[in-house]
Amino acid sequence: MQNFLSVHDVPDINRLIDSALAYKANPLKDNTLGAGKRIGLLFLNPSLRTRLSTQVAARNLGMEAIVFNVDKEGWALEFEEGAIMSGSTVEHVKDAAPVLGQYFDVLCIRTFPSLKNREDDYSELYIKQFVKHAGVPVVSLESATLHPLQSLTDLITIREAYTAARKPKIVLTWAPHVKPLPQCVANSFAQWVNAWGEADFVITHPEDYELSEEFTKGARITHDQDEALKDADFVYVKNWSTFNDYGKIYSNDPDWMLTEEKLQLTNKARVMHCLPVRRNVELSDEILDSPASLVTREAGNRVWAAQAVLAEILKGA
Amino acid sequence: MQNFLSVHDVPDINRLIDSALAYKANPLKDNTLGAGKRIGLLFLNPSLRTRLSTQVAARNLGMEAIVFNVDKEGWALEFEEGAIMSGSTVEHVKDAAPVLGQYFDVLCIRTFPSLKNREDDYSELYIKQFVKHAGVPVVSLESATLHPLQSLTDLITIREAYTAARKPKIVLTWAPHVKPLPQCVANSFAQWVNAWGEADFVITHPEDYELSEEFTKGARITHDQDEALKDADFVYVKNWSTFNDYGKIYSNDPDWMLTEEKLQLTNKARVMHCLPVRRNVELSDEILDSPASLVTREAGNRVWAAQAVLAEILKGA
Amino acid sequence: MQNFLSVHDVPDINRLIDSALAYKANPLKDNTLGAGKRIGLLFLNPSLRTRLSTQVAARNLGMEAIVFNVDKEGWALEFEEGAIMSGSTVEHVKDAAPVLGQYFDVLCIRTFPSLKNREDDYSELYIKQFVKHAGVPVVSLESATLHPLQSLTDLITIREAYTAARKPKIVLTWAPHVKPLPQCVANSFAQWVNAWGEADFVITHPEDYELSEEFTKGARITHDQDEALKDADFVYVKNWSTFNDYGKIYSNDPDWMLTEEKLQLTNKARVMHCLPVRRNVELSDEILDSPASLVTREAGNRVWAAQAVLAEILKGA
Repeated sequence: MQNFLSVHDVPDINRLIDSALAYKANPLKDNTLGAGKRIGLLFLNPSLRTRLSTQVAARNLGMEAIVFNVDKEGWALEFEEGAIMSGSTVEHVKDAAPVLGQYFDVLCIRTFPSLKNREDDYSELYIKQFVKHAGVPVVSLESATLHPLQSLTDLITIREAYTAARKPKIVLTWAPHVKPLPQCVANSFAQWVNAWGEADFVITHPEDYELSEEFTKGARITHDQDEALKDADFVYVKNWSTFNDYGKIYSNDPDWMLTEEKLQLTNKARVMHCLPVRRNVELSDEILDSPASLVTREAGNRVWAAQAVLAEILKGA
Repeated sequence: MQNFLSVHDVPDINRLIDSALAYKANPLKDNTLGAGKRIGLLFLNPSLRTRLSTQVAARNLGMEAIVFNVDKEGWALEFEEGAIMSGSTVEHVKDAAPVLGQYFDVLCIRTFPSLKNREDDYSELYIKQFVKHAGVPVVSLESATLHPLQSLTDLITIREAYTAARKPKIVLTWAPHVKPLPQCVANSFAQWVNAWGEADFVITHPEDYELSEEFTKGARITHDQDEALKDADFVYVKNWSTFNDYGKIYSNDPDWMLTEEKLQLTNKARVMHCLPVRRNVELSDEILDSPASLVTREAGNRVWAAQAVLAEILKGA
Repeated sequence: MQNFLSVHDVPDINRLIDSALAYKANPLKDNTLGAGKRIGLLFLNPSLRTRLSTQVAARNLGMEAIVFNVDKEGWALEFEEGAIMSGSTVEHVKDAAPVLGQYFDVLCIRTFPSLKNREDDYSELYIKQFVKHAGVPVVSLESATLHPLQSLTDLITIREAYTAARKPKIVLTWAPHVKPLPQCVANSFAQWVNAWGEADFVITHPEDYELSEEFTKGARITHDQDEALKDADFVYVKNWSTFNDYGKIYSNDPDWMLTEEKLQLTNKARVMHCLPVRRNVELSDEILDSPASLVTREAGNRVWAAQAVLAEILKGA
């Protein structure tokens, strides 16, 4: 693997999941693979799980990890080609990325969408500019439209928790929230589950919350949450803002919050969420505090997802 | 030791002091005790000495230390049970703590009081929620009402500096300040000196600055600073805001600032302060720059206090 | 070497450059020199290259590096002797520095000028107070008037890129910018090139942008940029604010921006800049994206400069 920006960088999803689960069983089995290698974790936006789990993963592989909060400890980067930089941006990615590529063997980057201009966000300009100019492998810690380390973690968790012989039914359901959120986690989950191909996959959301077909193609989509939940084995709960009329909150109907009662419709489904979760807005206490919830295990698996990806990058480099 | 939140977690204060002094004499004597262990330092508030000395202590024991500024690098946590999270908090401690407990073998946490609601602060809700949900040992880097690593350091410094046979006279004196400060350092110092039991302990402060009896019980309390200072061997200087009418500044009488002249009343007392200190407001230059001051040595001893505590936690885990 | 604050701390510039180039050829050749030593990187101001390259350098020497953003993770420091600290500063350098000196074997500090009071800035009060009170070697990561790690890097890059037998002609040219910037990089570059003595050195800037003679003495100074550029082998581009009427922007004439056309006047000069650079304000895209630009190599060399300096400090300690 040269970079890790989306599922398209992964030659074999199940093999990557196998690798992650092997690290979970034996975290230090490759603890010299990254000896003498240095990983830079660049944050243009806040992060808890991604930040910490990737540091832990790197160190499990014997790599040195250095964190840099670009905006807070450095300054605002410019991404526009040909910009006359007389405004608030202080350094162009064309200058910063090759410098960082000299300091690090692998660059990991988190950068959020603006949610203002869909074309800009969906062009993935920021992370692509890093790839173009860094000269070393780049790993997405969530970009404008995707969150591949989260999706890999989600599939690891599903494979770990599911034991039946038939294909699991997986439902991705929209949930209410107080702020307009990126589509990244939902896009990425849809993209990975579709590429994986080993599930009966349904997406449910209110009208006007369609995601991009680029990622959802292959899934069944319905506006009837109850119908979607029927016989589900996994319910993945996530809010996102509108894609068509970009970055808006249309409806915020609290009836879309998953409750214990709705969960009765499922096949004793396990409930997933990428965290952070707004309790009693996105997801009720009664579910999060019940054995149905996989959210803590899911977050713990972030370490093994990152470790499997970094190991592939190290081997491919 | 399972957690380190207050003196109540310490089976034997003098043994812990002995351990710290042994580390001071030989910092690397247990430098593989923490091998393969990872410590997370979570800051919900600023810190200089605590942050750096705890990192140094962890590394002296061979542990990996990862710092995370929760609010600045992550987001605001919710602590209220059952909260409907439609406000400014983004993640509940019930979700964050068990995740962090999967990433780290020990969690160290700094969290300040609001100084707005005494009952809330004195319930120590924040750190207790971490203990409840993290599933790994928790070490206080200062909480809403106590600062046990500071108090351990203070007793280490007193034991180190005191050579006479009789019990030392220790005076905790209130000092002026420009901002309402927590009672943590004063509460904790009082709690530890009382539990230690090897001193003649006097607390002096202006009227209305009573501390909670929970911590001061066992000490003599007086509003007459001059009388308190008489024959003191150690003078511990600290400001705190009011406890009864909570979090206020009543008087800010500059006469309460310790000066060279006042120090003449003592038995050539050594002067202590936890730092940071507002020079010439809390404590005069003439004292801080004189041989009477122990503040630098005291801050240096923070490393050995943290190292002794982490070693106990590692052995108890 | 005891400290590294300016070229005056360097007994032999060429020997230090040799050492840096030897580390570039073999980064890990002294990877136990700093074993068991701890370096503290204190930032009172933002930093990208300096922060990361110094961490990498320290680790190449086997040292532990701990970063501390003083203002953001701690609080504002006071530097004035005798200050009555009733304002916004929370801790005096007289108290902070000796504490930090107990935690670290070497202290590296970045602190910018105010650009408000020239006498204060040019007294280098901040970094000198650290030197006075820390009790351990201090390395400047850029101070109020100088940036010696940058200048060492610049000479390393010039020595590396230059192969002719005759002395190179080096031109330091002022460039436009949107904000009043420190004189540090220009002062320091002038100081080092003059001390090195192996170049024909010309400084060019608009009227009123004179730098302090303390640093420029030995260089030829002209207001005619075209004349200065004639036959140059290296053009060092940098903005600075006024020194005489301190910290102002007088003219901001865009004609001073280096272009491909102006570069025709030179002897196929290589173009240097310390970064970050405001593209198309300070320096044009056409130059930065051309083979004439050395800026990325220059930034990469920051690692070897820092490594050579830290190695000297370790050997001298």
